Amino acid sequence: MIILGIDPGIATMGYGVVEKLQNGNTVALDYGVVVTPKDESLPVRLAMLEEGLSRILNKYSPQEVAVEELFFTKNITTGIAVAQARGVILLTCTKQCGRLFEYTPMQIKQALTGYGRADKQQMQHVVASILRLKNLPKPDDAADALAVALCHAHTARFGGMFAVENMTRRKGKNTAAAISSFNKENL
Amino acid sequence: MIILGIDPGIATMGYGVVEKLQNGNTVALDYGVVVTPKDESLPVRLAMLEEGLSRILNKYSPQEVAVEELFFTKNITTGIAVAQARGVILLTCTKQCGRLFEYTPMQIKQALTGYGRADKQQMQHVVASILRLKNLPKPDDAADALAVALCHAHTARFGGMFAVENMTRRKGKNTAAAISSFNKENL
Repeated sequence: MIILGIDPGIATMGYGVVEKLQNGNTVALDYGVVVTPKDESLPVRLAMLEEGLSRILNKYSPQEVAVEELFFTKNITTGIAVAQARGVILLTCTKQCGRLFEYTPMQIKQALTGYGRADKQQMQHVVASILRLKNLPKPDDAADALAVALCHAHTARFGGMFAVENMTRRKGKNTAAAISSFNKENL
Repeated sequence: MIILGIDPGIATMGYGVVEKLQNGNTVALDYGVVVTPKDESLPVRLAMLEEGLSRILNKYSPQEVAVEELFFTKNITTGIAVAQARGVILLTCTKQCGRLFEYTPMQIKQALTGYGRADKQQMQHVVASILRLKNLPKPDDAADALAVALCHAHTARFGGMFAVENMTRRKGKNTAAAISSFNKENL
């Protein structure tokens, strides 16, 4: 089974693609970042993010996608920009995959190290060790994305957090939004 | 010129479509809300929001879209959900229109009443008066969307806040995201 992990961001979105083999081992197929230029407007950056993510989904056709939940402690303005990017990420994944799962930073740390407050360095060592990487995965956003993919690979068999019904199954039913219009003629 | 105004939201997104006539008057073509069910998961609601908004964009082909900026005072959790919806809204409008403008609640109030702290009731009376509506526009989200459309119609000639270059012009150039991949084979 191929799993795509995503660390949401507007300037830099981390992604990690892992495959869970029959023998129980998990290997890395790819990891990296999608970058959008700071001097572009937000809507254009969102469109670029969608385009880049869509290419990754097309290339690897993951059966399941695991996305890190947002956790704000510091900057609310940055937080809002990341949340807007995350909306685009969820939309794009839902349309192209349909099996989406969400994990908090603490759940990811807990799943990989057994300790909810592990630091970045510890996490990267565990990720490198599980995936048998020769070096620590870089940059940080890509390492975080591999971590959420591994978290899902390790916990999904115990139930995981199933967030989204398969959209393709839904498509036969009703994915149309309800529009309440002042205009008599229906949209 | 046809202008679409949007009041972002995940449960309820307000929209207002106005036309600025040659004689300087502005008339309402339509207004209403796109509603997504509370018992659906966020990704599915985002997909429904995109579908509904896309239908509105297709029906009215607005030359310009004006979107209200987020302003949080109360609930950060609700704020994050709205921000994720707003990301999807900006993406959808950028892909189908390309001329996007953003206004803060205070700018909208200032433009319509000359007073940045006007209340909802005052705003709805001004909107109804400008558009010669027989009744106050309802629900509130639709009224807010008409207000941001009118704000844009009235201030754009003085410069406005141009947020996004036309994507269609850009499409010939480079809307591809930069992907930095660990994988040798390029995406």
